[in-house]
Amino acid sequence: MSPERVEKKKPHVLIIGGGFGGLYAARALKRTPVRVTLIDRRNHHLFQPMLYQVATAALNPSDIAAPIRSVLRNQPNAEVLLGEVESIEPARRRVVLTDGADFTYDYLIVATGARHSYFGHDEWELFAPGLKSIEDALTIRQRVLLAFEKAEREPDPVRRQALLTFVVVGGGPTGVEMAGAVAELRRYALRRDFRRIDPGEATVLLLEGGLRLLPSYPQSLSDKAKLELRRLGVEVRTETLVTNIRPGSVAAAGWTIPSQTIIWAAGNVASPVLRCLEAPLDNAGRAIVEPDCTVPGHPEIFVLGDAALFNHQPGGPLPGICPVAIQMGQFAARSITCDLKGRSRRAFKYWDKGQLSVIGRGRAVADIWKLHFAGFFAWLIWTFVHIFFLIGFRNRILVMIQWAWSYLTFGRGARLITVDSNPVVPAARASGAVRVS
Amino acid sequence: MSPERVEKKKPHVLIIGGGFGGLYAARALKRTPVRVTLIDRRNHHLFQPMLYQVATAALNPSDIAAPIRSVLRNQPNAEVLLGEVESIEPARRRVVLTDGADFTYDYLIVATGARHSYFGHDEWELFAPGLKSIEDALTIRQRVLLAFEKAEREPDPVRRQALLTFVVVGGGPTGVEMAGAVAELRRYALRRDFRRIDPGEATVLLLEGGLRLLPSYPQSLSDKAKLELRRLGVEVRTETLVTNIRPGSVAAAGWTIPSQTIIWAAGNVASPVLRCLEAPLDNAGRAIVEPDCTVPGHPEIFVLGDAALFNHQPGGPLPGICPVAIQMGQFAARSITCDLKGRSRRAFKYWDKGQLSVIGRGRAVADIWKLHFAGFFAWLIWTFVHIFFLIGFRNRILVMIQWAWSYLTFGRGARLITVDSNPVVPAARASGAVRVS
Repeated sequence: MSPERVEKKKPHVLIIGGGFGGLYAARALKRTPVRVTLIDRRNHHLFQPMLYQVATAALNPSDIAAPIRSVLRNQPNAEVLLGEVESIEPARRRVVLTDGADFTYDYLIVATGARHSYFGHDEWELFAPGLKSIEDALTIRQRVLLAFEKAEREPDPVRRQALLTFVVVGGGPTGVEMAGAVAELRRYALRRDFRRIDPGEATVLLLEGGLRLLPSYPQSLSDKAKLELRRLGVEVRTETLVTNIRPGSVAAAGWTIPSQTIIWAAGNVASPVLRCLEAPLDNAGRAIVEPDCTVPGHPEIFVLGDAALFNHQPGGPLPGICPVAIQMGQFAARSITCDLKGRSRRAFKYWDKGQLSVIGRGRAVADIWKLHFAGFFAWLIWTFVHIFFLIGFRNRILVMIQWAWSYLTFGRGARLITVDSNPVVPAARASGAVRVS
Repeated sequence: MSPERVEKKKPHVLIIGGGFGGLYAARALKRTPVRVTLIDRRNHHLFQPMLYQVATAALNPSDIAAPIRSVLRNQPNAEVLLGEVESIEPARRRVVLTDGADFTYDYLIVATGARHSYFGHDEWELFAPGLKSIEDALTIRQRVLLAFEKAEREPDPVRRQALLTFVVVGGGPTGVEMAGAVAELRRYALRRDFRRIDPGEATVLLLEGGLRLLPSYPQSLSDKAKLELRRLGVEVRTETLVTNIRPGSVAAAGWTIPSQTIIWAAGNVASPVLRCLEAPLDNAGRAIVEPDCTVPGHPEIFVLGDAALFNHQPGGPLPGICPVAIQMGQFAARSITCDLKGRSRRAFKYWDKGQLSVIGRGRAVADIWKLHFAGFFAWLIWTFVHIFFLIGFRNRILVMIQWAWSYLTFGRGARLITVDSNPVVPAARASGAVRVS
């Protein structure tokens, strides 16, 4: 038998999605005798927790993204394919791509992430883009910067005010980070660049439908976040549910707010490709997984990260954050290795290292091992944790320098308006290998 | 009289275009008692000589671009407006923007640059994008990287070869740089990232219609450039005029070359807005200017850089390179200052500091003060000159680090495929404040 035929006999692990879950699963399989194929519709892995920094012109796209190919370059048993998944056929153990190509598998790892959800109002996306991909971030960056440019040229005071009103919908970590970053952009980076308007006068509104910001954090940190945002000049409105978004205005809790720049950070929905799995889904379209992260009746199909609802640990379902996806990816790889060695699998246990959210320059909140704290120290921890996790040595150095630079000068390095067309991707296209958060 | 009214009485200098000519003119007017308005349809100044590095994934867009606003931040007499010029009315000393706004001027500086010209075949642009703007560079980067991704998945050997054939049309500095950079990308950066194809096997063709590469250089350096490109594995074909470009193939000198990635670097045309000036234009649409860079009969209208044909110096018309634009911009500012002081203007004299073209890693050709040399030393000079000229301290440091990194590792930092749509701008749209080269 030729070496190639032996190679073909190795079990085939197919991974959909090159986000944290998929990538860590692939890497953890490096020494396992399997063939790994990772399919993503983008060529890059994205460090989504820092995406808001691209959207607010502090970082370049490539500072927080790396080609998946490069990350897996030195792993001979892994292959990377650029492609979009059309459907999964669990009965035939087969995955079909939109271009018609198909792949069979022995193990399938579905790490397709989530896109933003408009709660049945997909038409809002055009006026209120969300923040999941590099394209989303560039769209928002373009809109924010263009609003200031247009305001500089707008003689009518009412229209100028609408141009200088920025509304962020949703008070979770992304919304808090975006609101803080826009507030800082207008107060520091743009301060002396205009002649007719004062960017510092721009209004930044953060609207949250629920009772408080950062609902996954303890109450004391929610209060702290609100206070810090107000210090940055952000108007925080809780219990303010958005009821309508039209071109140029938001309606929420009876208010009508004229605004040319609305950013959506309010909800997530998992990839529609999960429907093929014949597994129970929750309201957000996530697969409700077994204690070993597989779907009922299919021990060969793992669902990870934002694509999964894991509810087998005290404290409720696991949140949609990177550490969960990373640990699930490593767990899935370990389970496959156990199978091949004839050992029995264990149940997945999430090791909670805490949560961190940044609010602005030197401001963050941290909830780590029962310690709750806020301010500069939390921000330092945030900075180091995030730089450490950025995949790729090069990115770490460049990001560190850009941050040091931004911090020292209040400037923003990536203030380019370059996207000509409107690359907003309708929510309905969130199929296949969606970016994993 | 209020201070504001005195301010209004100062002569108004209107500058169209924030490239090298326009920006240096604005900066040189810092201490002259005038009001300066700089209009550009982009918000950023672009360091065009390094644009090919963005197109080949070595640098990020914001490494070679800076918001014009930031550059002129500390110049109180200058104002920056984002807008596109529709027409110029020399008789009424008025400029009209596409959005209907209009501005009068006492002095007009037209520094609208050039776009690529397809010699009457504008339909070729769709299949063979050129390289003038950040969008152009991102389009080319996307096509080059996607070609490798598609080739990895293409089972048919003929189609795979067409995907792995890269054709650069035009043997001037841009064409030579692009061909060298693509050749290096395929040989070094991508070498170990694919499993089914060997990127090093990709064909890079450089087609030049004339007798030799780099026609503005001495013959010995043209030969040297050809030799160095061949060492990098580029197939150089001179006297090979392109006669047709269709989706997936180029026809040139009787050859038909199947290629999915064609890059246009063959010709320039100036902005159509110059037609409003009632001045004589050359074949490339440039205004034929007087010895003081103004148009005949209008000493208040200066035309600079790639928008001008200046033919009052021995050695023929000045080439379309940055130093010419910079010196013309400074000259125009000086002439205006002379006028205001009642002194007479002088004629423009270009101080030729030489030419430099890079071919690849450690390879360049230089023609400086009658010295002709090639190789590593020329490349070092190129590197320092270009980093020195990059506007903005921050950019210099980051670019230096990225280069050092690329040089040490052969990697490319900006290998992202992100542009969803096809942002190719038809040549016909090259009006108004086109990017200055």
